[in-house]
Amino acid sequence: MAPITNARVLFAAIPKDFPIPGETTVYDTSQKIDLETVPLNGGLLIKTLVLSIDPYMRGRMRAAEEKSYADAFILGAPIDGYGVCVILRSENPEVAAGRYLYGIFPHQQYTVLPSIEGLTFLEKDPKLPWTVFVGAAGMPGKTAFMGWKEFSRAKKGETAFISTGAGVRSARMHPIYVQESIELRDVLVDSMVIQLAKRDGLKVIACAGSDEKVKFMREIGADVVFNYKMMDTREVLAREGPIDVYWDNVGGKMLDAALEHAAINGRILECGTISGYNTGYEPVMNIHQTWAKSLTISGILVFHLQDKYEKEFYATIPQAIATGEIKYTEEISQGLKSVGDAILRVQQGKEHREGGDHRLGGMTSARVADGKKCSKGN
Amino acid sequence: MAPITNARVLFAAIPKDFPIPGETTVYDTSQKIDLETVPLNGGLLIKTLVLSIDPYMRGRMRAAEEKSYADAFILGAPIDGYGVCVILRSENPEVAAGRYLYGIFPHQQYTVLPSIEGLTFLEKDPKLPWTVFVGAAGMPGKTAFMGWKEFSRAKKGETAFISTGAGVRSARMHPIYVQESIELRDVLVDSMVIQLAKRDGLKVIACAGSDEKVKFMREIGADVVFNYKMMDTREVLAREGPIDVYWDNVGGKMLDAALEHAAINGRILECGTISGYNTGYEPVMNIHQTWAKSLTISGILVFHLQDKYEKEFYATIPQAIATGEIKYTEEISQGLKSVGDAILRVQQGKEHREGGDHRLGGMTSARVADGKKCSKGN
Repeated sequence: MAPITNARVLFAAIPKDFPIPGETTVYDTSQKIDLETVPLNGGLLIKTLVLSIDPYMRGRMRAAEEKSYADAFILGAPIDGYGVCVILRSENPEVAAGRYLYGIFPHQQYTVLPSIEGLTFLEKDPKLPWTVFVGAAGMPGKTAFMGWKEFSRAKKGETAFISTGAGVRSARMHPIYVQESIELRDVLVDSMVIQLAKRDGLKVIACAGSDEKVKFMREIGADVVFNYKMMDTREVLAREGPIDVYWDNVGGKMLDAALEHAAINGRILECGTISGYNTGYEPVMNIHQTWAKSLTISGILVFHLQDKYEKEFYATIPQAIATGEIKYTEEISQGLKSVGDAILRVQQGKEHREGGDHRLGGMTSARVADGKKCSKGN
Repeated sequence: MAPITNARVLFAAIPKDFPIPGETTVYDTSQKIDLETVPLNGGLLIKTLVLSIDPYMRGRMRAAEEKSYADAFILGAPIDGYGVCVILRSENPEVAAGRYLYGIFPHQQYTVLPSIEGLTFLEKDPKLPWTVFVGAAGMPGKTAFMGWKEFSRAKKGETAFISTGAGVRSARMHPIYVQESIELRDVLVDSMVIQLAKRDGLKVIACAGSDEKVKFMREIGADVVFNYKMMDTREVLAREGPIDVYWDNVGGKMLDAALEHAAINGRILECGTISGYNTGYEPVMNIHQTWAKSLTISGILVFHLQDKYEKEFYATIPQAIATGEIKYTEEISQGLKSVGDAILRVQQGKEHREGGDHRLGGMTSARVADGKKCSKGN
């Protein structure tokens, strides 16, 4: 077999504010690979099936000398992120070709891996597309599930507030591109948290920046929903609070509103502060509320919680998604070429409407027909 | 017995920024009381021995309609605060005259109480002056002890950072006036926290705004001490960190520095944010570090922790103070007349030097001669 193109997405320049497709990341087709003869040196050859574009990736687009919780992307090399791959060839006797892996992979079509260290085997479930395993049953879903389990101390009858974005549509929007079927999906941590809070018997207040999104939040069970662009968050919280649990993806003014209207002994789960990822962090003015009300703010990094909750997660969440008990939205985009745009869109919180390939509910009509996943209104 | 003056300190006006002695609080001698005939209606008559002036009192000098964790002082009525009293007369058969009580009392010489609800009986310990029971063995000490126990998750070999004041000398300075012996004492939560952290085997970094204070911190065991007015906190933390446990009394830039140099899984104990009590809260810019490093910020309100730790506290801390294992400083002032000045001084973090009645180490020479408490240098 002759060498074929191994398309990649390279980190080409550090963004000043928002990432610029074609400039900060570049789609590259210069590399060739011969799938049959490429040396594996005892490792394995994988083909990328699905990748996830996540908000935290912006933080990795920085100079290597700046330290942070996740390594900086390497200039000139492919970016990487959560994905699902299939093993094409293996020289490792314990790893068979044809098996599926979940974990962090380079953004390229084919990769030779020295080992499977840090990766998780997945079994194909005919009811679940692979995108689910980088979304609701992947890192975003784990973040929601494990963060909520570890830090919410939720009690029946309490009130939770879950925000999605301040000036952005969603702080944890997860477009995922599917390399073959050419889709980009949008799975929300937030929508998972809403459903976990409802399962625990809490009153849920949720906000978003579009009426469509607000409608979906209502559909998945939120008791009080509002468009924060149309209504004053502080007024809503004053009326509907105080807030026992606040799931923050936003930071800045949204966090200040939640601190102001937090209940005594309230818990704030700090999942992200997307309001500041591109244009500088917004000041937070209400930190004194932490001692004034015995609040706890817990920062969530999913990889610190995985050992504790991973078994329980895989034993319950994919199943709950397959039966439709847990619903989700997704946005599907096409191929590695679309990664640059997807990264920008996640940061801007914009909808991906052109070409009609965004669907709230996110399923192909065939999948919706199964009645197994959520689409708008079911 | 003829009626005598019952001196009081009245809340007279809401301060715009710093409290103004004689204006926001007024020393008042218009009330008379006959100690022998004043009707008790089944309650008790107490005489105030010791009162504590605490930073949080500024927060109570506000309009009644503004909600907060502690009630606003009532305009025209006496302010109140932690103190020790002796019972002069009792119509409650379970409460004998001559016993001592700890709790919150009005700032007046004599008070008729309907009951002892919310108050704690104290036994006189010849080795401990009453001031200790509103200081190192009172609310400030409880705050340190209970907050550290509940939230520090301290492990031997970790690094703690304890700050005292940003632009103020001390965020938890506790001048206490003694009504009879006419003294004002300064007990520091911070210095208690330093000693608790050392007992748990941590490396302790501590800062203050005066060289004298820095020297005392060294004497009680801090490993790295600095004057934050002379050195850049961020530089010190970059060199000596990362910080596993940060005890914050300050907020604003000091908190930002600690967030920046926090270790993964670091704990921030939020005891107060005095940098903003009088001139408006400083913005905090580094909240994103909470999720980037899995940090926890725990707000400390001692009255939420008392049920859990009070027994252990009284069983260990007064004893440790009496033996000199736990050292403290105090500042002693004279009579109710000095309350207004003391409140201001606490907020400004100023030393109380005039008249020579401030002593670092704080003991009368007789007490120092016992060798049971700390004075400067022992």
